[in-house]
Amino acid sequence: MTKPPASLLVLFGATGDLAQRMLLPSLYDLQRDGLLPSDLRILATSRGEMDDAAFRAIAATAVQAQTDGKAEPRQLAALLERIHYHAADSQSPEAMAGLAARVKELKRGDVLFHLSTAPKLYGPICEALGHHGLGGSDSRVLLEKPIGHDLASACAINDGVARVFDEDRVFRVDHYLGKEGVQNLLALRFGNALFEPLWNARHIAQVQITVAETMGVEGRGDYYDHSGAMRDMLQNHMLQLLCLTAMEPPSQFDPSAVRNEKIKVLRSLRPITGADAATHSVAGQYTAGAVNGRAVPGYREELGRDSGTETFVALRAHVDNWRWSGVPFYLRTGKRMAARSTEIYLQFRAVPHSIFGADSRAQPNALVIRLQPEECISLELMTKKPGLDRDGLKLAQVALDLDLHDAFSAERRRTAYERLYLDALEGNGTLFVRRDETETAWQWVDGILDAWRHQGLTPKPYPAGTWGPSSAVSLTERHGHSWRE
Amino acid sequence: MTKPPASLLVLFGATGDLAQRMLLPSLYDLQRDGLLPSDLRILATSRGEMDDAAFRAIAATAVQAQTDGKAEPRQLAALLERIHYHAADSQSPEAMAGLAARVKELKRGDVLFHLSTAPKLYGPICEALGHHGLGGSDSRVLLEKPIGHDLASACAINDGVARVFDEDRVFRVDHYLGKEGVQNLLALRFGNALFEPLWNARHIAQVQITVAETMGVEGRGDYYDHSGAMRDMLQNHMLQLLCLTAMEPPSQFDPSAVRNEKIKVLRSLRPITGADAATHSVAGQYTAGAVNGRAVPGYREELGRDSGTETFVALRAHVDNWRWSGVPFYLRTGKRMAARSTEIYLQFRAVPHSIFGADSRAQPNALVIRLQPEECISLELMTKKPGLDRDGLKLAQVALDLDLHDAFSAERRRTAYERLYLDALEGNGTLFVRRDETETAWQWVDGILDAWRHQGLTPKPYPAGTWGPSSAVSLTERHGHSWRE
Repeated sequence: MTKPPASLLVLFGATGDLAQRMLLPSLYDLQRDGLLPSDLRILATSRGEMDDAAFRAIAATAVQAQTDGKAEPRQLAALLERIHYHAADSQSPEAMAGLAARVKELKRGDVLFHLSTAPKLYGPICEALGHHGLGGSDSRVLLEKPIGHDLASACAINDGVARVFDEDRVFRVDHYLGKEGVQNLLALRFGNALFEPLWNARHIAQVQITVAETMGVEGRGDYYDHSGAMRDMLQNHMLQLLCLTAMEPPSQFDPSAVRNEKIKVLRSLRPITGADAATHSVAGQYTAGAVNGRAVPGYREELGRDSGTETFVALRAHVDNWRWSGVPFYLRTGKRMAARSTEIYLQFRAVPHSIFGADSRAQPNALVIRLQPEECISLELMTKKPGLDRDGLKLAQVALDLDLHDAFSAERRRTAYERLYLDALEGNGTLFVRRDETETAWQWVDGILDAWRHQGLTPKPYPAGTWGPSSAVSLTERHGHSWRE
Repeated sequence: MTKPPASLLVLFGATGDLAQRMLLPSLYDLQRDGLLPSDLRILATSRGEMDDAAFRAIAATAVQAQTDGKAEPRQLAALLERIHYHAADSQSPEAMAGLAARVKELKRGDVLFHLSTAPKLYGPICEALGHHGLGGSDSRVLLEKPIGHDLASACAINDGVARVFDEDRVFRVDHYLGKEGVQNLLALRFGNALFEPLWNARHIAQVQITVAETMGVEGRGDYYDHSGAMRDMLQNHMLQLLCLTAMEPPSQFDPSAVRNEKIKVLRSLRPITGADAATHSVAGQYTAGAVNGRAVPGYREELGRDSGTETFVALRAHVDNWRWSGVPFYLRTGKRMAARSTEIYLQFRAVPHSIFGADSRAQPNALVIRLQPEECISLELMTKKPGLDRDGLKLAQVALDLDLHDAFSAERRRTAYERLYLDALEGNGTLFVRRDETETAWQWVDGILDAWRHQGLTPKPYPAGTWGPSSAVSLTERHGHSWRE
């Protein structure tokens, strides 16, 4: 870094759920490990009137809740000492003027504005900051998802932000990119000479990306019903995983090189529109069922009303470029699935010819990169089944496993926000989503949602605790593939 | 199999060490598991006069010694019931006539003659068998190593055998080929689409094959001193491992296809002759030292006399064909090494470019196929070292491990001879060494031994419990490689 890190972090939405549950505890973790810039100050803001002491008490409670009450008192005190609070209704010009004055009073260098608010406020807040001279080259802005509800609203938000902040000073969070396991996918691909020669249509038969939750929508029903699985999970996290899986090797691990390769993947996604929607996509909505042996209500019961929102989506996508021509990328995400699992599964092609004969039970190789519930890499191989082989040599599938948690048990687990905060404070955008990425992803997702609407496709019911509607099974089986379970 | 298995196994050298320690116990294991052909008879022979009952008592003792006295009485009795004994000095025409008469009396179909005797007797025994009409198409012969002491003596033995038995009825044992781990090398290479694209000079930087023993020569000094590491281990076992590692995919797992590919590798070995011997080979002889903390004498002390025989040999070999051009195959075997280990190690080339920068600590990938002390496959990969990467993403080497013993713990471990006996009884030569293989191997080894002699190269001393003389280290380090330890 040629510049020192930001001197002031301004946190909008400081009393919100994300701030309490993730952001303040992550700042505590960084403080404890001596990783926060030494002179960093934090200005928290939200609508509620209170003084510094009152907010510090809230922050302390939030940190203690995440550390099971085991925060180190001196480190917690040192964090709280950095924190100030200034109440401001972001829609009130007077309030924003007051906030701006406070920012100017506290800043000693660059400022990072973190907007953990409703996305519709991103434009107005940026406008106010710009109005008060806080949008200059010594400022940057960190935005939470969702960036809009579709391409048009995303563009509107991005335009509003762009009127004040140049794109290289806009940091859009996709917290999946902050996860160790996701960065490890890059390390695996580009730190090993072994995989790259195999990482293409010549050697890979299919790719599956699964993000399965066992939770329902529970308290978040109002937000979720407006969004659905496609907007909440697929447009952002899953397409990011797809990009990292499918992209060409960037020349460096830096913001431009990495994001230029990701956008090429998004632009290569074959549109799923018109009649293709019925054969290449499945939407589902969970009904009452049982997850892990516990009876749970259906989506509509949880919501308390009727709804046509999908809680499950499965797609058969294609990346139309030289590397991936003809290889299906099956994407699947849902709530109330049979198990919690986030993983990328690459199935290799079968051996071209079995020297051991048709009865040898050869199965294709596969590589599994599991991100949740635990980080793990697994390579499925065929070995000889021990025995005297009176009726020919028999193969058996075994897995070379690496439990990353065990392998690095001495290392502290980091939350995604720890990494993302440090990167944003230092101005490194590699692990943030660029405007063109989010808009291209919306364009592709809009195409599918439009097709659903025009074709009259509605979510198919699936019982909670299953892997989605049966048509999701047909999506792969029709092509000779099977979902990994 | 179109023909039924042999009806009679004639075991020459039945009171010898190999028969007592390995052959009879393996026959018991096959009996116990119901794998011996139901009407199989066994005719044991050696010089000592005794009746069936006396030899059966010897056989019972041998089986009990290998099963810790836990042989199942009924199964042991059933094995002994198959066994007959006939004393014969194979150099006496009268004795061989008597033996031949006994064979004719017992045979009900094909006969397998197993010559577990001094190799110099192979020719005369075969001649006698032929003389008595026992070398016909309903007979085959199983030969133990060594086939000769050099190319000339190997040809003489093979000629003697060939005068009676066609090559497709000659089964030369290399017991390494009967090991599960060695056959698994074939399963790994040709049962997985994953490895074949990488299995060549474009992706592999070096191969190391190590057979290290901690034992000295102890009681076997007289035999060993006549042989040395090159003839005892490298000419046969290690070159077989090299062949299976380097060969092209055969079209089937059958005798001709597999052995045709192996012989191509042997014929592609670049000769190590003249001045190359000094730079491409190292011979060593152990001196007193300590193995696993226990003081042990040197080779000459064990032998009780002076000797110029090598107990260690290391080679830098090349397979001059399209697949392996430029890739060194380092071969290393020795007695009184620091650890017991038989393994094949393939080191892949480094990544062509590190996107994570020079400081990322990337190391090349490697695949390790371990045969001893336990069977294990290990793939060495780079992953992301967990952390917040303030000074760049760091890689760490981890191993995806598969302990085949654990993976198949329910399966009974088989000795090499169980498999080899069944194959020989059924007439399947896939896991036996063909004449051209053994002679081509001798030709290559003779070239090195001749060069040693002509260049006056003598074994360099190395202390017991080390990895050989220091010049073995230079053999790899000069080329930027390191022995795996």
